[in-house]
Amino acid sequence: MARLNHLFSKLSQSYLFPEIEKRIAAFQNAHPDSRPLLDLGLGDVTEPIAPSIIAALCKASLEMGQLNSFRGYGPSEGYPFLREAIAKHDYVDLGIHPNEVFISDGVQGDMGHFQELFASDSKIAIQDPTYPLYLDSNIMAGRTRTLLKTGRYGGVTYLPCTEDNGFIPSPPQSAVDLVYLCHPNNPTGTPFSREMFKKWIDYAKTHRAVLLIDGAYSAFITDPKIPRSIYEIEGAQEVAVEFRSFSKSAAFTGLRCSYAIVPHALRLFDFGATHSLHALWKRRQDTKFNGVAYPIQKAAEAVYSEQGKKEVRAQIRRYLEQAELLHHGLTTLGMTVYGGTNAPFLWVKTPPKTSSWELFDHLLHEQQIITVPGQGFGQKGEGFIRFSTFAKPGSLIEALARFQSNSSFLAGASG
Amino acid sequence: MARLNHLFSKLSQSYLFPEIEKRIAAFQNAHPDSRPLLDLGLGDVTEPIAPSIIAALCKASLEMGQLNSFRGYGPSEGYPFLREAIAKHDYVDLGIHPNEVFISDGVQGDMGHFQELFASDSKIAIQDPTYPLYLDSNIMAGRTRTLLKTGRYGGVTYLPCTEDNGFIPSPPQSAVDLVYLCHPNNPTGTPFSREMFKKWIDYAKTHRAVLLIDGAYSAFITDPKIPRSIYEIEGAQEVAVEFRSFSKSAAFTGLRCSYAIVPHALRLFDFGATHSLHALWKRRQDTKFNGVAYPIQKAAEAVYSEQGKKEVRAQIRRYLEQAELLHHGLTTLGMTVYGGTNAPFLWVKTPPKTSSWELFDHLLHEQQIITVPGQGFGQKGEGFIRFSTFAKPGSLIEALARFQSNSSFLAGASG
Repeated sequence: MARLNHLFSKLSQSYLFPEIEKRIAAFQNAHPDSRPLLDLGLGDVTEPIAPSIIAALCKASLEMGQLNSFRGYGPSEGYPFLREAIAKHDYVDLGIHPNEVFISDGVQGDMGHFQELFASDSKIAIQDPTYPLYLDSNIMAGRTRTLLKTGRYGGVTYLPCTEDNGFIPSPPQSAVDLVYLCHPNNPTGTPFSREMFKKWIDYAKTHRAVLLIDGAYSAFITDPKIPRSIYEIEGAQEVAVEFRSFSKSAAFTGLRCSYAIVPHALRLFDFGATHSLHALWKRRQDTKFNGVAYPIQKAAEAVYSEQGKKEVRAQIRRYLEQAELLHHGLTTLGMTVYGGTNAPFLWVKTPPKTSSWELFDHLLHEQQIITVPGQGFGQKGEGFIRFSTFAKPGSLIEALARFQSNSSFLAGASG
Repeated sequence: MARLNHLFSKLSQSYLFPEIEKRIAAFQNAHPDSRPLLDLGLGDVTEPIAPSIIAALCKASLEMGQLNSFRGYGPSEGYPFLREAIAKHDYVDLGIHPNEVFISDGVQGDMGHFQELFASDSKIAIQDPTYPLYLDSNIMAGRTRTLLKTGRYGGVTYLPCTEDNGFIPSPPQSAVDLVYLCHPNNPTGTPFSREMFKKWIDYAKTHRAVLLIDGAYSAFITDPKIPRSIYEIEGAQEVAVEFRSFSKSAAFTGLRCSYAIVPHALRLFDFGATHSLHALWKRRQDTKFNGVAYPIQKAAEAVYSEQGKKEVRAQIRRYLEQAELLHHGLTTLGMTVYGGTNAPFLWVKTPPKTSSWELFDHLLHEQQIITVPGQGFGQKGEGFIRFSTFAKPGSLIEALARFQSNSSFLAGASG
């Protein structure tokens, strides 16, 4: 008799984003004549893909229709042309070899799957708040104990990201095996400094832990003092895997292309010998993954052309300008606002005695504005709400006007 | 201290196709002046994607560059337009609802991941020989015991596919939980009959087992008496999940698009209640998968247009004509040949006292022809070699000529 993986029943009832979609749909069904919703929440880009990237996508698509240029199965780890472009442009002088770059169809999938390489009783540490995937994929794999009344799971080391520590956690006293660090963190919009990364690398070496760095938003880091990659800090290649994506840096959310850096220097001691995580990931991918579409890899390659670079930098600049505008507008209303300078997210305090889901529902029902409740990212996300700066320019201005009309409610939020 | 998932060490040293690639590369390095290799082995298509599909791919690619038509994240389960086209065209009158269709980027991934929904001590049954993924993904998940001297794993129910049973196995006497059936089977090229599917449905109902049907090659079924889908047989929706792909039916191996049918009627009894596999798969996909690229889903939709249908049918007809030609050529040489009429594979006996890897190496070194050794698909694959009919037409004629020149060696193969 086939039985279920009972671990699925430990997952919280519904994943954050589908829950948000459900509430939006319910509102729209109940209020078919409502003014248009303004989306300042969901983390999807709004600008279309840049012209030079579309040109490369179309050119490669046409190649797929010609006998002499058609390509079938590609390497599961991606085509050399893209692996080389990434190593050359994104890791200048950092000693990352193209062979250490694995192309994939999303950081979501890669970070969900990477835990498969480790023992089922590995101890994990995650930021609180952070993106729900890291925890959920480990719940499904059996690395958590009971769900406590606090909303946290037993057996997990939570790393609080609070106003007190500037939303960046130090390593814990205890030993863990796998550490998920999001840089800059989604939802708080805060990046790690060189010093904090150094602390984590030292911790990982001491405890032989592996750091899994989610760099999906690293393209938004503009402060030259903040490292874009953990590999800018010495010793990182021995302890860290870094995941990045073209989703937010080049508007690929609807095209799906990402990459993972798995350095050869990262070796695990186990069974009385050292083992290469690189070899293990290659084996995993060869077995369960068939690579990314050729035209999409060619589109990703075009991100690194002179014209492509110019275009995607301009996009990111516009999103960051919007972040500044939104930051200013919300601060003027008296709200306490974090993030938004090295990340596309603002992390905003809720008014006193207002939970983050309450503020979400209030903004949806009263102002027809979509946000993301901080509580959906962890216990320490309660009391905050996430705004993203991917809003369409018109929406942003209109949203600020709507906020103005309701400023008395929101103003209570000032710390 | 991070430790490895020790289950990976139970996997055979290297996955079949990378091992083949390695041997080919070694041959090419040692013989840089060799005449060109003829690939009659690897299961990749050779004809380019049909014109009407390329047109849809380019059109949708251009949409991604315009503000008013750009699409970011899509539903993890795929866009309604494609789910509806699949339900309407591939499951005519079979009662499959679009909501039961999940779009994905490959049968490889879907069938590798689907086992995650089941208890870790589930008993699995696989055909022998068959595609290695089913076994490997379950080894990684801990559902096998020791690797025996026979090359088989303890705890797995192997279903022999031999000349004696026409390469289609009956259900076993014992109870298992998950059954992987490949229809038509890769590598033997043999499909299940209605009667054999009926037997398996009855077995699944009796033992509350789940059937996982790999229909990646179902488009090659031309005999009207053979069911294309297991859902043509009554009761299948209560016990079977079916996986299909555009890879071989429409040359999408380099584009990546597939789908899984997870019927609402398929319910599991566990924890004293019944549960929906559909809901569980949706939760898994929402967590770890972000959907297939929009332009590729539009390309897949075009497969079902009048023009698209005409073009892909013609492609399949040409591949099947090549199968016939190869079948005839090999038979004329005195070899014993199976498959090739409802599948793109021929399953050919090796000469006496010649193992399948020996014949593979012989054909590579002496004739510069690439095949796939049957042993790579399981113990009962020993003594056979797989030819595919995706070869380029010129290659096929040339290969037959090369065989002629070596007919004395191959002729020994006749039963």
